[in-house]
Amino acid sequence: MEKLKQTLEKIGELQQEAMEKTRKRVDCLIKPPGSLGRLEDLAVQLAGITGNPYPTVDNRVIIVMSADHGVYKEGIAPNPQIITAIQTPNFAKGVTGVCAFAKQSGADVVVVDIGVAVDVDHPGVINRKIRYGTGNMAQGPAMMREEAVQSLEIGIEIAEEQIRRGKNLIGTGEMGIGNTTPSAAIVAVMGNYDPREVVGIGAGLPLEKLDHKAQVIRRAIEINQPNPKDGIDVLAKVGGFEIGGMAGTMLAAAAHRVPVVIDGFISTAAALIACAIEPKVKNFLIPSHCSAEKGGKAALDLLGLQPMFDMGLRLGEGSGAALAFHFVEAATYMVKEMITLEESGITL
Amino acid sequence: MEKLKQTLEKIGELQQEAMEKTRKRVDCLIKPPGSLGRLEDLAVQLAGITGNPYPTVDNRVIIVMSADHGVYKEGIAPNPQIITAIQTPNFAKGVTGVCAFAKQSGADVVVVDIGVAVDVDHPGVINRKIRYGTGNMAQGPAMMREEAVQSLEIGIEIAEEQIRRGKNLIGTGEMGIGNTTPSAAIVAVMGNYDPREVVGIGAGLPLEKLDHKAQVIRRAIEINQPNPKDGIDVLAKVGGFEIGGMAGTMLAAAAHRVPVVIDGFISTAAALIACAIEPKVKNFLIPSHCSAEKGGKAALDLLGLQPMFDMGLRLGEGSGAALAFHFVEAATYMVKEMITLEESGITL
Repeated sequence: MEKLKQTLEKIGELQQEAMEKTRKRVDCLIKPPGSLGRLEDLAVQLAGITGNPYPTVDNRVIIVMSADHGVYKEGIAPNPQIITAIQTPNFAKGVTGVCAFAKQSGADVVVVDIGVAVDVDHPGVINRKIRYGTGNMAQGPAMMREEAVQSLEIGIEIAEEQIRRGKNLIGTGEMGIGNTTPSAAIVAVMGNYDPREVVGIGAGLPLEKLDHKAQVIRRAIEINQPNPKDGIDVLAKVGGFEIGGMAGTMLAAAAHRVPVVIDGFISTAAALIACAIEPKVKNFLIPSHCSAEKGGKAALDLLGLQPMFDMGLRLGEGSGAALAFHFVEAATYMVKEMITLEESGITL
Repeated sequence: MEKLKQTLEKIGELQQEAMEKTRKRVDCLIKPPGSLGRLEDLAVQLAGITGNPYPTVDNRVIIVMSADHGVYKEGIAPNPQIITAIQTPNFAKGVTGVCAFAKQSGADVVVVDIGVAVDVDHPGVINRKIRYGTGNMAQGPAMMREEAVQSLEIGIEIAEEQIRRGKNLIGTGEMGIGNTTPSAAIVAVMGNYDPREVVGIGAGLPLEKLDHKAQVIRRAIEINQPNPKDGIDVLAKVGGFEIGGMAGTMLAAAAHRVPVVIDGFISTAAALIACAIEPKVKNFLIPSHCSAEKGGKAALDLLGLQPMFDMGLRLGEGSGAALAFHFVEAATYMVKEMITLEESGITL
């Protein structure tokens, strides 16, 4: 609890002076004002986060949190639960989707077993297992409140280790069979949606099972009565270990003033938890894509964030965040590589 | 005319066998089928274009065509016409928006004076000037039919030179004060729109002048009566030299089976010309973003293309194409870096 408390105390506001400097430069660059749209806002946000009017994001990492879910037993996922354990080492081996895109954008991938249902034995996987999967939220809380805090603190510690190593851009990713279900539960609780409005097919659930998936979430909410004003409570009752780990990563990034890119549906649910715990985190978050998972748009809307691209992605893993790294870097190139109208001798 | 004819004769269909191989591999990769959305389709398209199931796009170039417009005299642009001439060498110097993003994505930038209104004296600018700007389309044709063909052939020759040098991914870009006006004219003609529906603010025209801009286009169409079924006729009567150059680039890319990324509004207008000349070109085009310029969406709709991202960009120059290069490359990384379910030992 101490780690979490210290981290929350550190989270501040965006640095206005740096933002003003960057905004001024961006407005004077050799282009019609505003013509680089959201890249301009992104550059200003990066300045506000880092306090540097010429921000750099050249040392990048995707942190993948891997865990299982007790609610799997309710038949809410199309694939065997063991896939989580089989796939987790594949992030260390560099052969999954997020690995392909991380390689392309020159980012490291760090993978953490924060609660996979069986032992994961691979030297490249960081073992921070809290427990062998959460409890079944349809029958009781997914985890104890202490475990929720623990998942946040593991996320904080993993992110801090990366920041110590010089990482200046972090992306959140996850692996966990069934984890669109707790994510939809979080979105339903935070946005007061009926679960049916925010459940999707996840990794390929047949459409006729969506009513069942929604009903499982409805039951989980009824039984556990999560308090939407208390992010830790929501995480504990209807969340997941990897979701807590990602939320912790976001809290640490905000505390250390490192920009953090959220991936798709599950990452966005984690962002809802992080922002419920500390609303100032939002300023440090960079959205990436609009997930093809049904609740993705609703989750981003709750955060008041607009996605940068929509490519029909629903893989998770941090794959969309890795792709968005290009745009984040592009904003920094805009600031540094373009000259101003004045420097070019153009007077309008 | 011979060059154009030879080029058109070379344009073929997508290579089905390569596409099937890539589709099969993509479907078997270690992810839920379809979960990488449009990147999957993009990988298949790249295979069809190149004939290689494992396509590579590691040698990239943005070709920037620069020209002026007689219709500038009608007061349709907010900035001095001389900006075209001042800005053109800046592409060679590497200091404009597209240069920043090209540098980030490891792409060369080639800039061509295909019709700037004054002499452009810089060793980095390729001089293929057809004439000192087009004629005023509000009073007569922007150019002679022979000049339209010439602009296409220059585009073909410039692209072929790049392809000879090993470029395997091309982006189209442009510079030309006032060129959203001929672009809107092309979209209006091709889509049978009233010009008011497809004119935007360009580089920052005051909103109260949009009616005037539309009226200028309406007059140009009335006077010239371009035939929407004849792409060269439309280009000659209400187009521009840089638009012809970009259309030629697309024709050459298609003929040589090199993927070509279209940028924003003006590039899309050029794509409409290219596809009117030879509809098979469309298969070789990759859209990038939805321009913030009002007619951008309409132009893409006419082509039946869906943008990959929407960041509120309206700079042109090829800036959006350079950003899209990341996604195109990501599709190739997906094919090559991810393993299949079988290779991973997962059986579902």
